[in-house]
Amino acid sequence: MPPLEFFRLKTREEVLALYDCFPAVGVEEVELAAAGGRVLAAAIAAPEDVPAFLRASMDGYAVAAKDTFGGSVGAPQYLEIKGEVPMGAAPARSLGPGEALRIPTGGMLPQGADAVVMVEYAAEHQGDTLEVRRPVAPGENVLTPGEDVGRGEVLFPAGRRLRPQDIGLLAALGITRLAAYQRPRVAVISSGDEIIALDRQPAPGQVRDSNAYLAAAQVAQWGGVPLLQGIVPDDYDALKAALAAAAAQADLILVSGGSSVGTRDLTLAAIADLPGAQILAHGVAIRPGKPTILASLGGASPKPLLGLPGHPASAAVVMEVLGRPLLARLSGLETEASWGRTVTAALSRNLAGASGREDYVRVRLRYDADTLWADPVLGPSGLLSPLVKSDGLVMIPLGVEGLLKGEKVEVQLFGS
Amino acid sequence: MPPLEFFRLKTREEVLALYDCFPAVGVEEVELAAAGGRVLAAAIAAPEDVPAFLRASMDGYAVAAKDTFGGSVGAPQYLEIKGEVPMGAAPARSLGPGEALRIPTGGMLPQGADAVVMVEYAAEHQGDTLEVRRPVAPGENVLTPGEDVGRGEVLFPAGRRLRPQDIGLLAALGITRLAAYQRPRVAVISSGDEIIALDRQPAPGQVRDSNAYLAAAQVAQWGGVPLLQGIVPDDYDALKAALAAAAAQADLILVSGGSSVGTRDLTLAAIADLPGAQILAHGVAIRPGKPTILASLGGASPKPLLGLPGHPASAAVVMEVLGRPLLARLSGLETEASWGRTVTAALSRNLAGASGREDYVRVRLRYDADTLWADPVLGPSGLLSPLVKSDGLVMIPLGVEGLLKGEKVEVQLFGS
Repeated sequence: MPPLEFFRLKTREEVLALYDCFPAVGVEEVELAAAGGRVLAAAIAAPEDVPAFLRASMDGYAVAAKDTFGGSVGAPQYLEIKGEVPMGAAPARSLGPGEALRIPTGGMLPQGADAVVMVEYAAEHQGDTLEVRRPVAPGENVLTPGEDVGRGEVLFPAGRRLRPQDIGLLAALGITRLAAYQRPRVAVISSGDEIIALDRQPAPGQVRDSNAYLAAAQVAQWGGVPLLQGIVPDDYDALKAALAAAAAQADLILVSGGSSVGTRDLTLAAIADLPGAQILAHGVAIRPGKPTILASLGGASPKPLLGLPGHPASAAVVMEVLGRPLLARLSGLETEASWGRTVTAALSRNLAGASGREDYVRVRLRYDADTLWADPVLGPSGLLSPLVKSDGLVMIPLGVEGLLKGEKVEVQLFGS
Repeated sequence: MPPLEFFRLKTREEVLALYDCFPAVGVEEVELAAAGGRVLAAAIAAPEDVPAFLRASMDGYAVAAKDTFGGSVGAPQYLEIKGEVPMGAAPARSLGPGEALRIPTGGMLPQGADAVVMVEYAAEHQGDTLEVRRPVAPGENVLTPGEDVGRGEVLFPAGRRLRPQDIGLLAALGITRLAAYQRPRVAVISSGDEIIALDRQPAPGQVRDSNAYLAAAQVAQWGGVPLLQGIVPDDYDALKAALAAAAAQADLILVSGGSSVGTRDLTLAAIADLPGAQILAHGVAIRPGKPTILASLGGASPKPLLGLPGHPASAAVVMEVLGRPLLARLSGLETEASWGRTVTAALSRNLAGASGREDYVRVRLRYDADTLWADPVLGPSGLLSPLVKSDGLVMIPLGVEGLLKGEKVEVQLFGS
């Protein structure tokens, strides 16, 4: 295995294009009540009309609209009240000419009625005479069958993430179970001789396993199921065994590596020697994040492996920039709106770009008067606190020397 | 109980101010690995320094910076390599004048070293001579103890929702359990004689229980635990019993009511007659959403009840505008950034406002060239499909006659 430096760095776009070789995870049946946020594995068409019947959308009187024509405050129309429509049942009778039935919102209109006169524009006299002071048009204050959704209409395509209102519409149609992509299971392996478990007191030279917890929390936030695999020392056989075990139970393997070249080389060798595995990228033209590894673990349904840099800020940026789209791909998510995931802000100081790499700068957002400012949060990528103080990332594109103070920039919000 | 019309409508701000009387839910201990998205119930200070020791942030050579001063490509400094720092352990020896140790990223600097010379600016000769072609300053390529976080530093205040990077920092500090507010349990009661369970085929006049599912999905999305309570007919005793049962197990009670005046009046009466209960608002000056009810169920730790309008779009808007802040209050959430929850867009047509009420108009977002447009999605609030087609809400403030085509508006994104 030649060292990293012999491989040409891949651009972010080139890495994203490699994701096409990874299929979406399997499909499972999900109860509607638990389907919020899940990704549909098949399109859903309406099995029936909603509403199923002509429904009042106001409290009032079911009438034939033509019987109200010409009614006004000065010259009202008079109709005969023949009783009322019960809630949740069909009306007991149909409507003849000049007749009306009291009807609650949601009530079913009787045969012969095509509109509802609102309570506000009517008055009852002697219990059975209705004074109508304003005409209604046919269809006024009613919902017609199929007006919300017509039978057979395709409601949602496959690959759509279900929102609360989608769940509401599916409930209205009586769809209680649906086919959704599984939540991708994401194994997180920590490697490095210096890494220890959280509950241990570090001896000199040791650090706790923070990157794996950070990555696992990102995975959970993005809809995956993180599986923390524990810590593997810098040992070829141990690493290879851990990778094979993770590949057997997960849809995506993250290796949260140590930062040193030694750890990275070992990781690369252990991956490359797994049967059927192929290193697709090692070295990505982003800063931070250059020592990122993308591999396919082969097989009929190849599973991806993402090797994260050891510095916490680098690992977090790689997860945002490369890990999240990979998880989306595995989740079967087809498209998701970009609004709300980025905001436009004014840069509060000049930023120099990295020659030859896309540069991701952590920024904190702040309103001052009516302007949203992005304050760069600087600091070595070995630190966690600048990340904790930041709200998102500003990207300086490849080939751009830098961004100027006051310039409008798109901020990619963390986690959103 | 006087009818709704006798009560003055409360403004949204007035309703939000009433939330102050509801305390946050209880506190529980949470494992760090499950703490992403949870709200801290107590501030957390750092129990130790991070890093705990002087750490290399690059692969290279640990040196005393002063030994490298004056080094250049033409006139390098020469140091003696005395071995290497092992990963995850203290260096075996300290550094004397003119000495260097090989060190990996993350390695602990030996006594006597204060900087790291990067591999790129050095060369080894005869295995034990280091040629340094560029001087380093003290502290260069190292992380000093406490540079990330100093012992005793307050990291997070109570009321903060934990993000992935926060989890990472807590992991680095060995904090494996923390005090978080419980996820608020939210009972959702459906009331109305016309409402049937999802798995039943509606008879004429009947509709399925869609609003409860919509509200439950919103609650889950916002971090609460929805408890679907099933359907209660329009019967005073049944409703009162259901309310009492829900109050016993939930932190917030949602009543997803029928739209008719009859259902609403019954609900009001049943709430008001619960021991200690108090109607705080019935009637809110928003459109849709006027027939909203806010009540306190009394007791030492009063629980809120929110009565939702029967029309699906009205209920969804009330949940966004009033339900979500109430859930945040109960969750102990102190402040949350507004970015990402609203976007600025250009309105694609004129919109007239509602006299005397804040008007919430559903909009669909669409990019055309570089402009983000908000297209109003019109349709009666009895329909679900306009909500499904929408991405968020535009508010026309009280007292504003309307908004003009092309005007920049803030869109409150659904669910974000």
